[in-house]
Order: sequence, then C-alpha cells, then structure tokens
Amino acid sequence: MGSLNEIAVAAGINISSALGFLLAFAILRIQPINDRVYFPKWYLKGTRSSPRHLGAGFSKFVNADLSTYLRFLNWMPAALQMPEPELIEHAGLDAAVYVRIYLLGLKIFVPIALLAFIVLVPVNWSSGTLEHEKDLNYDEIDKLSISNLGKGSKRFWIHIAMAYVFTFWTFYVLFHEYKVITTMRLRFLANQSRRPDQFTVLVRNVPPDPDETVSEHVEHFFAVNHRDHYLSHQIVYNANALVGLVEKKKGLKNWLVYYENQHAHNPAKKPTMKTGLWGLWGRKVDAIEYYKAEIAELCKQEDVERQKVMSDPNAIMPAAFVSFKSQWGAAVCAQTQQTSNPTVWLTEWAPEPRDVYWPNLAIPFVELSVRRLIIAVALFFLTFFFMIPIAFVQSLANLDEIERLLPFLKPIIERNSLKSVIQGFLPGIALKVFLILLPMFLMTMSKMEGHISISGLDRRTASTYFMFLFVNVFLGSVITGTAFQQLDTFIHQPANKIPETVGESIPMKATFFITYVMVDGWAGIAAEVLRLKPLVMFHIKNTFLVRTEQDRQQAMDPGSLDFGTTEPRIQLYFLLGLVYAVVTPILLPFIIVFFSLAYLVFRHQIINVYNQQYESGALFWPDVQTRLIAALIVSQILLLGLLSTQEAEKSTVALLPLPVLTIWFHYVCKGRFEPAYVKFPLQEAMVKDTLQRANDPTMSLREYLKDAYVHPVFQKDDMYELIAMDEEEKNPTVATKRQSRMNTPVESKFNSSVGTSEGEFSRMHPA
Amino acid sequence: MGSLNEIAVAAGINISSALGFLLAFAILRIQPINDRVYFPKWYLKGTRSSPRHLGAGFSKFVNADLSTYLRFLNWMPAALQMPEPELIEHAGLDAAVYVRIYLLGLKIFVPIALLAFIVLVPVNWSSGTLEHEKDLNYDEIDKLSISNLGKGSKRFWIHIAMAYVFTFWTFYVLFHEYKVITTMRLRFLANQSRRPDQFTVLVRNVPPDPDETVSEHVEHFFAVNHRDHYLSHQIVYNANALVGLVEKKKGLKNWLVYYENQHAHNPAKKPTMKTGLWGLWGRKVDAIEYYKAEIAELCKQEDVERQKVMSDPNAIMPAAFVSFKSQWGAAVCAQTQQTSNPTVWLTEWAPEPRDVYWPNLAIPFVELSVRRLIIAVALFFLTFFFMIPIAFVQSLANLDEIERLLPFLKPIIERNSLKSVIQGFLPGIALKVFLILLPMFLMTMSKMEGHISISGLDRRTASTYFMFLFVNVFLGSVITGTAFQQLDTFIHQPANKIPETVGESIPMKATFFITYVMVDGWAGIAAEVLRLKPLVMFHIKNTFLVRTEQDRQQAMDPGSLDFGTTEPRIQLYFLLGLVYAVVTPILLPFIIVFFSLAYLVFRHQIINVYNQQYESGALFWPDVQTRLIAALIVSQILLLGLLSTQEAEKSTVALLPLPVLTIWFHYVCKGRFEPAYVKFPLQEAMVKDTLQRANDPTMSLREYLKDAYVHPVFQKDDMYELIAMDEEEKNPTVATKRQSRMNTPVESKFNSSVGTSEGEFSRMHPA
Repeated sequence: MGSLNEIAVAAGINISSALGFLLAFAILRIQPINDRVYFPKWYLKGTRSSPRHLGAGFSKFVNADLSTYLRFLNWMPAALQMPEPELIEHAGLDAAVYVRIYLLGLKIFVPIALLAFIVLVPVNWSSGTLEHEKDLNYDEIDKLSISNLGKGSKRFWIHIAMAYVFTFWTFYVLFHEYKVITTMRLRFLANQSRRPDQFTVLVRNVPPDPDETVSEHVEHFFAVNHRDHYLSHQIVYNANALVGLVEKKKGLKNWLVYYENQHAHNPAKKPTMKTGLWGLWGRKVDAIEYYKAEIAELCKQEDVERQKVMSDPNAIMPAAFVSFKSQWGAAVCAQTQQTSNPTVWLTEWAPEPRDVYWPNLAIPFVELSVRRLIIAVALFFLTFFFMIPIAFVQSLANLDEIERLLPFLKPIIERNSLKSVIQGFLPGIALKVFLILLPMFLMTMSKMEGHISISGLDRRTASTYFMFLFVNVFLGSVITGTAFQQLDTFIHQPANKIPETVGESIPMKATFFITYVMVDGWAGIAAEVLRLKPLVMFHIKNTFLVRTEQDRQQAMDPGSLDFGTTEPRIQLYFLLGLVYAVVTPILLPFIIVFFSLAYLVFRHQIINVYNQQYESGALFWPDVQTRLIAALIVSQILLLGLLSTQEAEKSTVALLPLPVLTIWFHYVCKGRFEPAYVKFPLQEAMVKDTLQRANDPTMSLREYLKDAYVHPVFQKDDMYELIAMDEEEKNPTVATKRQSRMNTPVESKFNSSVGTSEGEFSRMHPA
Repeated sequence: MGSLNEIAVAAGINISSALGFLLAFAILRIQPINDRVYFPKWYLKGTRSSPRHLGAGFSKFVNADLSTYLRFLNWMPAALQMPEPELIEHAGLDAAVYVRIYLLGLKIFVPIALLAFIVLVPVNWSSGTLEHEKDLNYDEIDKLSISNLGKGSKRFWIHIAMAYVFTFWTFYVLFHEYKVITTMRLRFLANQSRRPDQFTVLVRNVPPDPDETVSEHVEHFFAVNHRDHYLSHQIVYNANALVGLVEKKKGLKNWLVYYENQHAHNPAKKPTMKTGLWGLWGRKVDAIEYYKAEIAELCKQEDVERQKVMSDPNAIMPAAFVSFKSQWGAAVCAQTQQTSNPTVWLTEWAPEPRDVYWPNLAIPFVELSVRRLIIAVALFFLTFFFMIPIAFVQSLANLDEIERLLPFLKPIIERNSLKSVIQGFLPGIALKVFLILLPMFLMTMSKMEGHISISGLDRRTASTYFMFLFVNVFLGSVITGTAFQQLDTFIHQPANKIPETVGESIPMKATFFITYVMVDGWAGIAAEVLRLKPLVMFHIKNTFLVRTEQDRQQAMDPGSLDFGTTEPRIQLYFLLGLVYAVVTPILLPFIIVFFSLAYLVFRHQIINVYNQQYESGALFWPDVQTRLIAALIVSQILLLGLLSTQEAEKSTVALLPLPVLTIWFHYVCKGRFEPAYVKFPLQEAMVKDTLQRANDPTMSLREYLKDAYVHPVFQKDDMYELIAMDEEEKNPTVATKRQSRMNTPVESKFNSSVGTSEGEFSRMHPA
C-alpha cells in the first residue's frame, strides 16, 4: 500500500541512477580509447579499423573535442535512424525482430494506457469508497485503483467492458505483429543468397548396420530413397576431446603473448615463471620458452587426436548432414518420415553451420525421452523448491555458526558494525548469487535435454526461465512466501479460491511492482548500455595481451543478445502491464517508459555492439507469442478472481468467455502462422531452385557444400569468411550505407587460432 | 454398501437374461429364414447365395434337422477358429484390431486379477477392522476391499506396491500391443495391392484465382511444384442437392415395389392410394402408375441437377483429389507444406474413396476454427449441463401439468395404476431417449467440426462420447448428483480435495458398478448377438419389398462396428477395472467375464455379420491408447485421494511418481509409434513403387485413377466392384477358406439403384 511519496522517492533514486549510467555512457563512448567497446560491431563488419575521433598523442585516448560533449545524447536519434531493412541486413533478422518485442510493448500499452487514463482512472477516483472508511489504511495510489470501488459496485461493469476492449486490442496487435514477422521471415529466407543449410538436412539416429560404415549406410539409404535429389553427405565426429585440447592451447597462447609483451617492454629482462600450481611453486623457467614448448607439445597431441578421431569408427556418431541437389529435395526430406520405424533416420532441417550444438548430435531416441523426464522433474523441483538449498546455505552463513566453527574470527565478527553488515548481506548474497547463476543452470539443463542447435537451447532456456520468473517473482511477490509454500497453499485451496487469493492481493502490490519496474527496468536497461564488464575486460586485455591490431580485435567482446535471459524478463513486464491495465492503470506509464528506453538502448546495441552468434530467422517468435497469450490468460483469470471477491458475481460470469476466446485466438494464430516457422514450403523452394539454376547454371553445389558442415575443429580457419565473401559478392546491391567505406574483406585475420567451441568460433569469424 | 446377496440376485437375473438372449440366438440363427440376418457378411462377400440348411417346403423356413439343435453353441468355438491373418483378409484390419481391444482387456486384467486375489484379497480379508466396529454398516464385499484396513494401517504399503506392479504390467501390455498393432498396420498397408488412396492426396482450400478455374489452378500448381510426380486430379462438386434427389427417389422406389408386390399377389385388384399427406387425404389414384410417374419426373430433375452441378462454376468446391505417378510422390505431397501461407493448399492423405465425407470438403480455414470453438463450448455445456433441458422436459411430463393443459385426459390419468406407471416411467423415458440419441448428437457435432472422413468422424465422436461417459456415468455414479452439481462442488473444493472426495466414495460404489457391468456388459453384449432390430426389419422388408434375390440382398442390414458408440463403452470397463484393481479386486472377475463374452460375440459378428463402411487401417489405435492412459492416470489419482483420507500420508507420497511415470510413458509410446499412423514413410513408398513398376510395367495409372474419387452420385454403379474384382484377381493366393465355394462375383447387383449417401452406398457396394 505504497504512497505517492514513496514512489516519488523511489522514482527519484532510480531516475537519477539511470541518468547517471546514461551520462557515463555518453561521455565514455566518445573517448577514442573505448571505441572498440562501444562500436565493436563496426570493427567486426570491417567498416571501421580505428576510432573516428582519432587525434595525435593524448587525444588518441581521450576526446578533447569539446563540441562532441555537447552532442552527448545524439546516440538516441542515431539508434532510431537506421531503417528496418538495413537493420536486418546489418544485424540479422533475429536481432531486428528482437527489438520489435519492445516496440510491440509500446503498441499494446500506449493505447491501453490512454484509454485507461481517460476512462478507468476517473471512474476509480470518483468512487471514493476508501475515503468514507476512515479506519482503512489507504493512499493516493489506491484511490486510482479498482480498490476504490466499493463491494458490489455497478461500476465494475466498466472495468469488465475495458477488459474486453484491452483483450481485443491485444488480439489485434498480436495478430498483426505475428503476420508482419512471418512475412519478414519469409522474405528474409527468400532474399538470402545460397546458404549451406538451405540444401542440407540433419539426419540423426542412423541405425547400425553390420556390413556398412555409417557413411556408406547413409549414402546408400538416401541414394535409394531420394534417388533424384541426393547429392552428398558429411558424417559427424565425436570431437569433444579435441575441442578440449584446442581450448587448452588457446589459454596457453594467451600467456605466451603476455610474456612476450613483457619482454618487448623490457628487452633486458627475460620473464620467468614457476611451473607448479598457479605459478607459486616449482622450478623457475624461462616463461616464453616454456610456453612455446608447451604449445608445440599440444599441437602434436592435437594432430594425434585429430588423426585418431578421423580413423576411429567409434568416434563416428550415428548422425550425418545430408545435402541435396535442390532446395526442393531438402525441403521434402526434412518434412517427411523416412522409414516405418520413427525412431531411426530422423530428419530435420540442418541448423546454420555456426548454430549447430555438436555435443548433442548423437543422443539415441530412448535416452532422449529419459533425459526429458529427468529434466522435467528437476525443473519442477528447481522452480518450487529452490529456496531449500538456499536456506541451507544461508543457515551456514549464520554468524553464530561461523563463530563456532572458526573461533579465531570471533573478535572481528563481534564488532557491531561488521556484524550487522554480515547479517544484513550474507543471506541476500547467497540468493543473489543463485539468481545470477540461474540462467546458467537452466542452460545446462537445456543442453542435457538434447537440443541440437544453439538457438534451440536459447529458446528452451527462455521458456524455463519464464516459468521460474512467473512462479517466483510474480506469484512470489503477490503472495508473500516461497514458491513451495505457495504450492502448498494452492493445493490445499479450492480451485476457484486460487485466482481469488492472488487476485485479491494484486491491487495492494501495485507500488511494489512500480518500484520493481524502475529498479530492474529503468536502471537495469541504462546499465546495459554502459557495458561495464566488457569495458573493464577490454582495457585489461588491451594492456596485457594486445600486440597487434588483430589481437586488439580479438580482445573485443561484442557479446550478443542473450535471448534466454532477456526475453523472459520482457515477458514479465508484459504480464505486469496486462494484469494491472484494468486494476491499477497508474502502473502502465512506468512500463511504457521501460519499453521506450529498452527499445532505444537495444536498437543502439544491436547496431553498434552485439554480434549475433547465429541467425535463426526469428524462429523464436512463436514462443514469444505463446508467452504473451499465457500472460493474457493469467491477467484475465486474476481479474476474474479479484472481481469474485468484490461481491460482483454476475459481472464475474461476464468475464468467463475471455479466457476461452483467448485460447481460441491462440490456436487460430498457431494454425495460421506457426507452420512458417516449422516447415519450409515446397513452392518457395521450387522458385528459389529455378532462379538459382537460371542465374548460375555452372555452379558446383557439391564443391560449395563440401566442407560446410565439418566440425569446427577440423575446419580451415577461413571457411566462414569464404561463405561470407561469397554472400557479399552475390549481394552487391543491398549493402548497408556505411559499408562502402571499407569493403575489401580483412585478409586471414587469425591464422594463429583454430576456432574452439562453435560459439567462440563464430564470434571470432563473423560474416 | 451392497451385500453378497444383492449381487447374487443381480447376477442371477442378468446371467439368465444373457443366457436367454444367447439361447434365442442359438435357435434363431440356424433357421434358414434368418440366414440373411445372421450371416449377411457371407452373402455380401458372394460366397453364399442361399441358406445352408435349405430344405424343401416348410423346412425352407424352419430348421427341422434336430441334430443341429444339439450343437447350438458351436458358434462360439467357430468364432475363435478363424486365424487372425485370415480375419484381416476377411473383415479388414479395422475390425480385426477392434476385437483385439477386448483381448487387450483380458491380457491386462487376467494377470492383475490373479495377483490381486493371491495378494490383496487375503490382506484385506484378514485385517478385520470392520468386524471390530460393530456400529458400522458393512458386508462381505467390503471385507474383501481396501475399506477393511483400518486408518493408518501399515498394510497400505502392500496396496501401493501392487499399484506399481499393476501399472508396470499395464505399461508392458500396452507397449507390446501398440507395437504389435503398428506392425500389423504397416504390414497391412504394405501387403495391400494397388489402391487409389495410395496415390492420391486431398488438397483443400485451393485459393481463388481470377484467371483460372479451380481445375486449371490445381493442375498448374502441382505440375510446377511437383513437376516429376504430378499425374492427374479430380475436382470436387457440391452435390448435396443431388444427393437429396437420389435419396427421395429411393424412397419412392420402395413404395413402387411395395405396390407392385401387392398387385402380383392379387392381380385382379389394382392397388390405389391417395396423393395427400400420408395417403390419408386427396385424390385416389392408381398407386403403381402414380409412383412410376413420380420416379420418371425425379429422374428428369436428377439429370437436370446433374448437368447443373457439372457446369456451374459455383458448384465446384475449392478442393481436389490430386493423384501422383508414384506413391513416393504422393507421400511427399501429403507430408509437406505447399506454400508460405499455411491456410491454403492444405494437403493430406486422401481417405479411401468410400471413407470420404463429401459435405465437409469445402469448409474454409477460418470457418473451421470458428466451428471448432463453437463445438468445444457446446460440448462443454452438453457434458456438464445436459440435465437442464432433460429436467425441463421431465417437468413438462409432470402429470398435473398435463392435466392442466389437456383437461380431457384427466379421467384417464387419474386412474391409480396408470398414474403410477406414468409418473414412474415418463421422466426415466425422457432421460433414456436422450441417452439413446446422444451418440447421434455427438456425431452431428463432429460433422459440424468439419472432419473430412467418416473414420475421422467416428474417432472424434468416440472421444467426445468417452468424455461424456466419464463425467456423467463414472463420476456421476461415484458422487451422486448431476454433472453440473459436481462441477460446482469441484470448483469450490481445494484441488487436493477432489481426488479425496471421489477416492473416498470409490470402495462404496463397488456393488453398484458390479451390477452395472452385468446389466450393460453381460446382458447388453448378449443382446448384441441376437440382432433383434435387424431381425424384425429384415422380415418386414422381406415380406413387403422383396421381389428378386437382389432385393433380398438389399433388405439385409449387416450393420457395422459403430466405433464411435461402442469403443467408449469398452473404455469405461477399462477404467472401472483399473480403478478397482487395487481397491476392490472382487470387481475384476465380472469385467473379465465381460471382456471374454464380448470378444467371442464381436469376433462372431465381424466374421458373419458386420460389413465395414470403410477401412482406415487401425487408424484409431492411438486414440484407444490415449484413453487407456487417461484411465490409468485417473485410477492412480483416485487411489492417491483414497489413501490420503486413510491417514497414510507417507504412503501417499510414495504414489506420486506413478502419474508422472504414466505421462512419460504416454509420450514415449507416442513418439515411438504414432508417426506410423500419421505419416507414410518414404522408404516403404519407394519399395512399393519399385515392386509395382517391376510387376506391372504396362499399367496405366491414369486410367486406373480416373474415376476413383468421383462423387458417388456421379459414379457408375459398378465402380467399387471393379476395384474389388481387381483386388481379388491380384490376390488369388490369399483367399479365405470358405471363399472357394462360390468365387465368381455376382454380376451387376443393383443396376436399378444409384448409390445415395456414401455410407449407404458402400454398404450396398461391398468389396
């Protein structure tokens, strides 16, 4: 039951911290020394190779041009200027569609907020029930909310009517957006020039054959059953050990560079090191020699391992990438069942080469279903019982316990100031650490479930994370208590009491959620644009590890949109907006500010910073839509519950069709649009085949596809660059505006490093 | 709380009525005059054209050979003798798999019953809690049930262990059965000789084109997008008006035959009739002349209408049957998406020609989803609120009401005996009439949902009917009260109280369900074999309408397995068996008797009587499996509820993994087997294509498919016979034993009648 005052204070704090972050960003971004932190995307694209404000001497590092400081906010309009087609070209469809989620928030909530302020707020305000009940503890916010209506008030009908209006408006916006994004996806796929994944199907669970190798078996099977279309195939090796070696070599190389740099700064003194644990014990050796020897040794091991993998039949996974002569042939194979046993010869579209999650390609069918069962149970326990281990850790962090175990700390702990700090912070820190690590846990669980593409892993993580946020943040805040206690309450309550219990507390929590939006939303987004961690990391690397321009490029950490973590958070704001639209409309402006700010910031980031790991062609949109529908249904059920506690039974019945309509709307959208994300239409494939054959009749597809799906550790370094160059050559007409500045591809950037894991690899070999 | 006595009485009554039916059947079936009622299948197959015990004169109608009366039960072993492959050949896979459902019941429940009687019954019996509580009203049945254990008894652990054993046994049987039936289906499809539906895909929602007719549009689209595979297509006409005319003509013809027969019996007297309503008013005319004129007039109208349909572009539906040069091509087209808009050019396997439900072929995509919404809401109300209109009708049937409205009936009604009869029966009759009509309502609703095959309609009706039976028969009997009251109770109860409430009353209802099994199961099945209605109808038709041998054949009503009505009833027995297996095992023998008897009876019926309308290749099995899994989960949850009222909390927790495991098992089975029912593997298609091309290189597929998917009213009468003959010729080696007796197909059976609706049509034109 917050008061306007409290909110004003919270708003003040958060607005100033957000402004602080934005100001810091505005100043830091125009310093030449930070150019690679705030504009890495342009370096990776090859359109920028040195800071734009580069001066001589001191001004090489600090921007001394005062006029630029006056224009310190001009990144905001700049972020909006790039038109969408160019944005798609520049950052990929995934990123362009991702920022549209924020825009979608504005589209939904700006009209709803206007309507709510014109209709609902006056209705609530003028009711004045709370004023008459002197003993009630109310404040200004509550006077604007539905609580101000007395029980059984006729005015609830206005709220019910508005609930319908809001729902239909949301339907309209959602349907329209799904349509637009589906069209964008189809156009994107159609406009793409030739790509390996368009011709390739991933085949898993190749059954063992006593007489043939996996490779022969695959070839014979597809040569028979797709006689006119089969072209070639690429078997999959289990190269996990090799990946480990490559990873280790990379670490050693960093140290080698570090010592070489030291030596270069101070040629007189040969750097030395100790060979033991963490360089603390052991023999003293010449560091440069030592690392050179170690790396040479590792290279040898790597070669041996590579030979072993290539020749060992056990290292061949029962999976293959099968390529076809035409996209039509690939589309057919990906969508059909191959044999009467549906657990073998499973075919699906191959993900992009850089999107493949190699370790999961070999999981057999039965194991997959066991894994799913285990992970489903684990997710249930994680969501509802995660407080138990946390509470255990917190009890360990108890001061008396620490004193008992480590008596020598007693005098320090007993100091009053320290004691209160520890007692205040330690339990909170345990929880905070858990929450920070949570997306990582969820990602690990998704990996264990056996998804075969990185984009698929991201999507799966997003949905589990949203479940967690919904249960623990949303419900957990509305009904105080842990999720476990809620679960206990819920199963001991009548089914129709649950929405009542939750719905009843909804209006009282408005202040809390307004504060939440400001802390997590406003200040969080402003912190995102500042990129504090990459800023620090870049300068550390730049100081110790960078020798050449190429090293510096490598030291950049552009990062990427982390769909699995950020999307569920947006969904939480949608949920809050939809739930409070009818109940306490005063919350809406805060959410609108969040969506606007986030839209600005993320549009800026995808233009200047992020470098996507993969391009899935907005494959995540059906998930986004599903969660929005779920949020809509939750909001309707909670409104139902709230109204049924207000002695307005008749009006409650009037709300019942809403969830039914929403579920129906969901199925309509699903049937209408989802196939565009799951299947690939034969007509489009035929059109593209015909066009490509006409444009390039002499093209050797076999040559083109030969190495596309080779495991990254076996791949020649410049593979992706070749593909990228090929694409650039094919698309000379659709270049981004700024691209003209420097269009010759950077030659063989990192000859020294073989790509490591596919994510790392693609980040370093961007298209 | 039934007593053993009550059950003995009920058993006595039901066993004697069942035996009565069986005895009547045994005697009636060997009378030559009934031969066509009890052996129509053989007549339709063409292997029998006159009764086997045919004598001269009197013995033409009544069997005078007394020795056959001694062997009156020999139909039972005979029903079991035909081996399964022959049964499939003779009656189709659908029928053969259908009777396996009863066998499945035996496989599941015989071992469970044995184990329950060895382990659970002694445990329950020896507990003797009920004996010590003298004030309790218990009986022998309860002493054998779980109620005999005291609250918090340690013996519940034995029941929990048995619940696990029963569940795993059911898993094993279900998995094995699914596997067997999937293999049967695949073998059946593979062994079939050439059939039109193997090469044909149904295309719906052909988008309108301003320049081309539907036919041209279809041809161009498939010629482009399935260049190497497209063969031909058949457009679909809206012939519903024509079907009405044909239907009407058939009725008139029956009257003509009736009067002609009268005239033949009594050549002196010309039969006359009145032309007005029901022949009661109007001008007196010569009946034969009148009907001949009417029929001639209708024939003319029919021709006009046929011409109109063929030439009117509005009568052409935006749908077509597209045929391909190879099964591979058809398999590809059926499984893939054609264009980027997933609401047009929808392709799916064409049902068998006789399985097509023509009126639904033209429903547009958006309308379909609206229809589904409406039907879903209607089904919900039908299931939970069906008592409201019934109660209204019953109140109308109230005596005082009748007296008030129709005062002249008062003296009749006031007689005491009549009054009690009316008051006792009328309300019951209203309910009974509703329940008899219910499957028809549900079928109509399924039709409105827009399914395009008769088999699909049957499957859909079965699932809605099962929902109805579950809510109104099972739950409705356990918790007394209407479904509407239950719903009200349920939503006002805590979620964990619902299984408790239901679970608690489960043991008390054992006697009721035992009686139910005997009345509905034993006596009902025995009545099925007697075929009272077809028996009466045949003799009526035989007396008035039959002139020739062909007419007599037409007068037979072999009927068919009515999947939509009978399968949900079997499922109810599975549900009862699974629920009571742990709680009151004494119910199991009654269910086992039901399954044995039903297996015998239905095997006899599909061999000798039923003539299936269509052959879907056991496409219904996934539904059967799903409902069995649902029954298993219900039984587990109810056991959980029951135990949690017995102060055995710990043991309750031990049961929680069961439903989770069951759901998981469901998904494993679904993933493993379901694709065989949804998709058609390319490998099989390729094998069959290759074989057929090798066996019959000169075959003109285009000629073969030309008229296969013409609407029945446009079709030449002997179309199906041609197909049937073709099949017979191709399969001379796999004949049924009795077929050798008379293998020449009956020539042009019903030249006089053009087929009417597809059901009627196929029943008259059997393969």
